Amino acid sequence: MQTVAIVGVGLIGGSFGLALRQAGFEGELLGVSSPPAIEAGIRSGAIDRAQTLEEAAASADLIYLAQPVDRILATIELLGPIARPGCLITDAGSTKSMIVRKASQCIGSASFLGGHPMAGKEQRGSQAAEGSLFRGRPYVLTPHAPDTPLSAKLRPWLEKMGANVVEMTPAQHDKIVAFTSHLPQLLSTALAGTLATRSSHGSVQGIPQVFGPGLLDMTRLALSSPDLWSSILATNKAEITLSIDLFLEYLNKLKNAIATDDLPPLFDTGAAFAAALRKLPFIN
Amino acid sequence: MQTVAIVGVGLIGGSFGLALRQAGFEGELLGVSSPPAIEAGIRSGAIDRAQTLEEAAASADLIYLAQPVDRILATIELLGPIARPGCLITDAGSTKSMIVRKASQCIGSASFLGGHPMAGKEQRGSQAAEGSLFRGRPYVLTPHAPDTPLSAKLRPWLEKMGANVVEMTPAQHDKIVAFTSHLPQLLSTALAGTLATRSSHGSVQGIPQVFGPGLLDMTRLALSSPDLWSSILATNKAEITLSIDLFLEYLNKLKNAIATDDLPPLFDTGAAFAAALRKLPFIN
Repeated sequence: MQTVAIVGVGLIGGSFGLALRQAGFEGELLGVSSPPAIEAGIRSGAIDRAQTLEEAAASADLIYLAQPVDRILATIELLGPIARPGCLITDAGSTKSMIVRKASQCIGSASFLGGHPMAGKEQRGSQAAEGSLFRGRPYVLTPHAPDTPLSAKLRPWLEKMGANVVEMTPAQHDKIVAFTSHLPQLLSTALAGTLATRSSHGSVQGIPQVFGPGLLDMTRLALSSPDLWSSILATNKAEITLSIDLFLEYLNKLKNAIATDDLPPLFDTGAAFAAALRKLPFIN
Repeated sequence: MQTVAIVGVGLIGGSFGLALRQAGFEGELLGVSSPPAIEAGIRSGAIDRAQTLEEAAASADLIYLAQPVDRILATIELLGPIARPGCLITDAGSTKSMIVRKASQCIGSASFLGGHPMAGKEQRGSQAAEGSLFRGRPYVLTPHAPDTPLSAKLRPWLEKMGANVVEMTPAQHDKIVAFTSHLPQLLSTALAGTLATRSSHGSVQGIPQVFGPGLLDMTRLALSSPDLWSSILATNKAEITLSIDLFLEYLNKLKNAIATDDLPPLFDTGAAFAAALRKLPFIN
């Protein structure tokens, strides 16, 4: 692997470039992004220089798509006719089924490998990029078949970056993240939105003054931008709707249990799961 | 103020003792608690020695009730006939209306002052106590009238501990914390419970392996014990039910907006509130 092109030099794309360097990559790192992102990426060392998508498609051995999901879908269409044979295209999009389907239509499954690093920060942009962003975090790959040569090409680099690589189908990935990522995002947004609505009614004074640290935890995801989330949620509607419905079932059970003073079993189930999450070997 | 008795030497009670010492209190700190809590409290310096509730009621100038809400209610009944005149009784319970009502029946509002430090940690017990626990955090007092001498007696000590003292009525307090504390707790528990249920169905493999840092934020409160929460929720049912209903309204709006691809306004409302919370002067 001599030449890597990163399309979208933001938090994830910039971190991928930095991590690749730290993992020992000595080839060239090209950036396809907006002028300010390119400038910040060159300054931090995440990329060496800018190219157009057309130039990158003609020369790169690996193209890393680190854009919002809707932009990844559009870039895949553009790449279809221009990517050179032998080039591996991968992405870091938060949903996989639609992206992988689009890629198999436009590019062919032999040269596309879906991916999703389960890493992030509140800040966006390549200013926030870190070479250690993927360390100790799950990195999902969705090869069209297990042990494909594509996965063999990318996986060792991800492992050198310290990521915990997990392989599964796009459908499995989207089912899981509906519960572990999309549902939590919607709950955080809905909580902050509820408090905003309640607060602006003026019927409760002082909401912003009286709260503990737990409210900050629970509203951190709500800081996320709709730019990113609109296309994530739009490409996983069925699974997300299911996750919301199961959540509503549990919340209604809790509501009834408050009325009947029978909370402990429902609390214990949640507490046991929360504790088990924290005992996973890769959580520090 | 010469003698302070702390009833329930756990995280909050122990932290109150340590904070009082650090704020310059030179009198005696008595502890009314279980033998292991007393031992840990003496070791850390949170209290000087153990007493029974009867002994403490006969000698203390300030009695600080730092038990779960149901236990505070029971202790107030016991203290009614035995607290010496001139003793100020305060509490650190997470709901205020029922506690203050019980106190006015049993003790008389002239010597009871409701309180609620909005501080906490995942760990419980006086081993986790810290003299800085209240620093920079809101501390609600609910005097039966503004500028009562009771509040004048306790408030300066809380301010020396670095707390942001806020006075309001018990009803105002309970309305607000239903939204800022009780609702977030229920959402975290319901999220973890939903994932536990989904996981144990076996229909989604790998839930525990594929998630980002946001899921840890969103399930931190779910670690809380039902011992504490059962009586918090039982003493604020009407306000909590209202907060759940308003939340359900917002979540259903989000669910519909996913179907119609119209998320940005709902995301923006949540993001603006979450950002405003973090701009408060006492958030660091």
